[in-house]
Amino acid sequence: MSKPETSLMDRLTALCKRRGFIFQASEIYGGLNGFWDFGPLGVQLKNNLRDAWWHDMVDCPPLGPDGKPLSIVGIDTSIIQHPKTWIASGHVAGFADLMVDCRESKKRYRADHIKVYTVGYSTPKGVGAWSLGVLEGDDAELQVLKRAKKLVQKQGGGDVRIDSSKPDTLTDIWERHEDIYGPDAENPGTLTEPRAFNLMFHSYSGVFQNEDSKVYLRPETAQGIFLQYKNVLDSTRVKPPFGIAQVGKSFRNEVTPRNFIFRSREFEQMEMEFFCAPEDGMMWYEFWVGERLRWWEAQGVSKDNLFRHVIADADLSHYSKGTSDIEYRYPFTAPGFGELEGVAYRTDYDLKQHQEHSKTNLEYIDQENNRRYVPHVVEPASGLTRGVLVLLCEAYQYDESRASPEWLKLKPSLAPIKVGIFPLMNKDGMPEVAEKLYMDLRRTYTCQYDAKQSIGKRYARMDEAGTPFCITIDGDTLTNQTVTIRNRDTAQQEKVALDKVRAYLAERLSA
Amino acid sequence: MSKPETSLMDRLTALCKRRGFIFQASEIYGGLNGFWDFGPLGVQLKNNLRDAWWHDMVDCPPLGPDGKPLSIVGIDTSIIQHPKTWIASGHVAGFADLMVDCRESKKRYRADHIKVYTVGYSTPKGVGAWSLGVLEGDDAELQVLKRAKKLVQKQGGGDVRIDSSKPDTLTDIWERHEDIYGPDAENPGTLTEPRAFNLMFHSYSGVFQNEDSKVYLRPETAQGIFLQYKNVLDSTRVKPPFGIAQVGKSFRNEVTPRNFIFRSREFEQMEMEFFCAPEDGMMWYEFWVGERLRWWEAQGVSKDNLFRHVIADADLSHYSKGTSDIEYRYPFTAPGFGELEGVAYRTDYDLKQHQEHSKTNLEYIDQENNRRYVPHVVEPASGLTRGVLVLLCEAYQYDESRASPEWLKLKPSLAPIKVGIFPLMNKDGMPEVAEKLYMDLRRTYTCQYDAKQSIGKRYARMDEAGTPFCITIDGDTLTNQTVTIRNRDTAQQEKVALDKVRAYLAERLSA
Repeated sequence: MSKPETSLMDRLTALCKRRGFIFQASEIYGGLNGFWDFGPLGVQLKNNLRDAWWHDMVDCPPLGPDGKPLSIVGIDTSIIQHPKTWIASGHVAGFADLMVDCRESKKRYRADHIKVYTVGYSTPKGVGAWSLGVLEGDDAELQVLKRAKKLVQKQGGGDVRIDSSKPDTLTDIWERHEDIYGPDAENPGTLTEPRAFNLMFHSYSGVFQNEDSKVYLRPETAQGIFLQYKNVLDSTRVKPPFGIAQVGKSFRNEVTPRNFIFRSREFEQMEMEFFCAPEDGMMWYEFWVGERLRWWEAQGVSKDNLFRHVIADADLSHYSKGTSDIEYRYPFTAPGFGELEGVAYRTDYDLKQHQEHSKTNLEYIDQENNRRYVPHVVEPASGLTRGVLVLLCEAYQYDESRASPEWLKLKPSLAPIKVGIFPLMNKDGMPEVAEKLYMDLRRTYTCQYDAKQSIGKRYARMDEAGTPFCITIDGDTLTNQTVTIRNRDTAQQEKVALDKVRAYLAERLSA
Repeated sequence: MSKPETSLMDRLTALCKRRGFIFQASEIYGGLNGFWDFGPLGVQLKNNLRDAWWHDMVDCPPLGPDGKPLSIVGIDTSIIQHPKTWIASGHVAGFADLMVDCRESKKRYRADHIKVYTVGYSTPKGVGAWSLGVLEGDDAELQVLKRAKKLVQKQGGGDVRIDSSKPDTLTDIWERHEDIYGPDAENPGTLTEPRAFNLMFHSYSGVFQNEDSKVYLRPETAQGIFLQYKNVLDSTRVKPPFGIAQVGKSFRNEVTPRNFIFRSREFEQMEMEFFCAPEDGMMWYEFWVGERLRWWEAQGVSKDNLFRHVIADADLSHYSKGTSDIEYRYPFTAPGFGELEGVAYRTDYDLKQHQEHSKTNLEYIDQENNRRYVPHVVEPASGLTRGVLVLLCEAYQYDESRASPEWLKLKPSLAPIKVGIFPLMNKDGMPEVAEKLYMDLRRTYTCQYDAKQSIGKRYARMDEAGTPFCITIDGDTLTNQTVTIRNRDTAQQEKVALDKVRAYLAERLSA
């Protein structure tokens, strides 16, 4: 294939639909841009990733530098919070993309997506240059040349050439906007001044619809944690350093949702806010970057495809003293990387903002050391939806020599189905034994019983689903109480005594 | 106490806040009416209930009438779907409460909440009757008499009496509205005509804000299942009868959120749509009513507090051939009951509506029997948020003789914390053994390590959290390798060998 990365995403998306991992939301109504649904296999995979995070974060948190387990509790806050939350957090004022409208084409664009090329022309009537805006992308230069040729034809023909291969960003050269052509315009100067478009979805709560009843769908789960930080302190025995962890939906009215479930308008996050003494912030920031990188590797993501992107000081949010993105080499970013998780040292910014706006004292009183302070916060904030995409990209295998060329090499404990159980033939007492085994194993593992088609086709179906083990009840089972267990990764089969199956699986399916 | 039911809710709400089960959302900003957050203990309880439902519905579904396990798969669809979804489902046109405004008091009321009493008066100036509207409630008659006496005083004094103890409903006697006093009005005829107020939250998706971009937050998870029913059929091996199950958030802009988390504006549901051949609908409806009642009992809800409320034919939705509510005796409904789950036989209404509006064929092709049909659907739809409230109400115990008079008798497998682990004293090697045990057990169970305060206070704290077992490492542990395990329900203690602790817990903590 000439463009393997692009087509890998196409193939993965097709597999996801065909096998019930991910469907377009509202597909029968033509879909809804930026929204996706998880099918039977997808929801199990997503739940498994969610549960692994929760287990390793809340039920069984990592050991701290002193070798003792950290103190982290869970929480689940509302998607809709008091609107002042988002004023305090800065989202009402600042969580926006710059947009421009085109008076000619009536289209709307994200300002940072428009690149402006300077194209020189030479025609019988004279020479000069146009400033042509196009949407960024692989074929931007091609588009520019096409349009320039059209313009030159209108003038009776001539030559064009792009003056510089590095285009300008619209906002940087806005003072020249009278001369700039919009991406779909035939005349210059039709773009309106860039203005902020807030990415928060809004609604109204209560029977009146006005500015007082306006509410927002949270664009991140984190703020709900900050709002309840004091209630958690008062109702549990935690004290800094400690964490509050949350998994839940967030919403962002992205202007250009894209790349499958990578950037969608409704998505799930796994966020943890770690509260500590001010002087320990940098230490915990480094701790959590290392810990989270290690965690993703433990979910089966290869080290080579993970990258710590340290955000340069100049690019940090004004309140952050350090931020690292944990990036993954997605098929659509390769050989580059794209965000999977952000670990940010947010200082005491959020708590102080809420303290000020709510007039509630959010200091921690450290009785042992006889001092009080607003804790500093380190936040490992990960996408659950994006995490599922990473697991799928990482697991996707293509091997023409197998019955199912496409198969998913998922970490066994994360696989949607753990065990396939097949009677080799639907007779001779095999189904009875298989059903009995299924009834026993399903209490512990997500199993699938399948008696249809050839055994090869059944293996192939399970390979596509990423099922690590398939157990076949065959003639030998009836005569000497053994079953055949087939390993997804090696495609090798081995005989195991029926009464040893549970131990066999337990050993191989623990996280 | 004179009103034990009311105060039980007050005490439960206070316990929930004090121990971190449930907090008011955005409390530091004064709260937001109808929104609640789950704290560290609450989220664990809610997750445990969610996981129990998912396990018993999806991973290990019940056995059908033929003794074989049913076929049910999971799904997770978006909160925001294509707006046509809600036109087809009937929610845009019909999911509304009737509201009236009062021109005098400027207040807004749900029309069905206003009860109109006829109050006869006799004053020196003559006799007559007023139609006085009040908000329904325990003290409605008292309110009516109070207002009547005020009115009579204005006329120079006299007698009043309520003509009939059964008040009228505003909408039934709307033709007399010129004579009716609003609940907070001093003059008659100030109420506006009742008009529909839709309970769906709306927002806008995309950069334009207009009727074309208007979207809704789902008021139920069910419709997402109907939209993907065909994709599930095509991507799995299920065929009728089979179910699709989903857990997720829904939103209803309730006019009067009330009774703690019983009626909130943001809540979670556990819904399953069971698709079957048309002729089997009534059979599956009865099956699922029985199954769901049994399931709630298995979660520790006493049979006496559960009630099957068969909706009378006259009150059924036009498309339903049978609906039963599974009701619970909440403290605020006792001795009556309130809804916990609805089991509805919805026929083929939803699928046919979506078939018509989407122009997509949603028939199932039954090749074995050479026929095609739109499946009928039986829906057990339960509140997860409401389920947590039921568990808390049911578990709440008050016993003055205990160290903590308030304690929660939760089913052990649902308890937020399964095991408390305490060194009797913070010395003599006890913490080391306790920590080692904690590090081992936390891999499997949600444990809490606690070394503070007296052992009695530590037990009391765990009783309030509903923790079924507390393990104390004491002098005996160091000398003869036994620990003391204390049972929450009996408050009895027993000695167990350290190496038998895992077996002891495994036996008692399985669902």
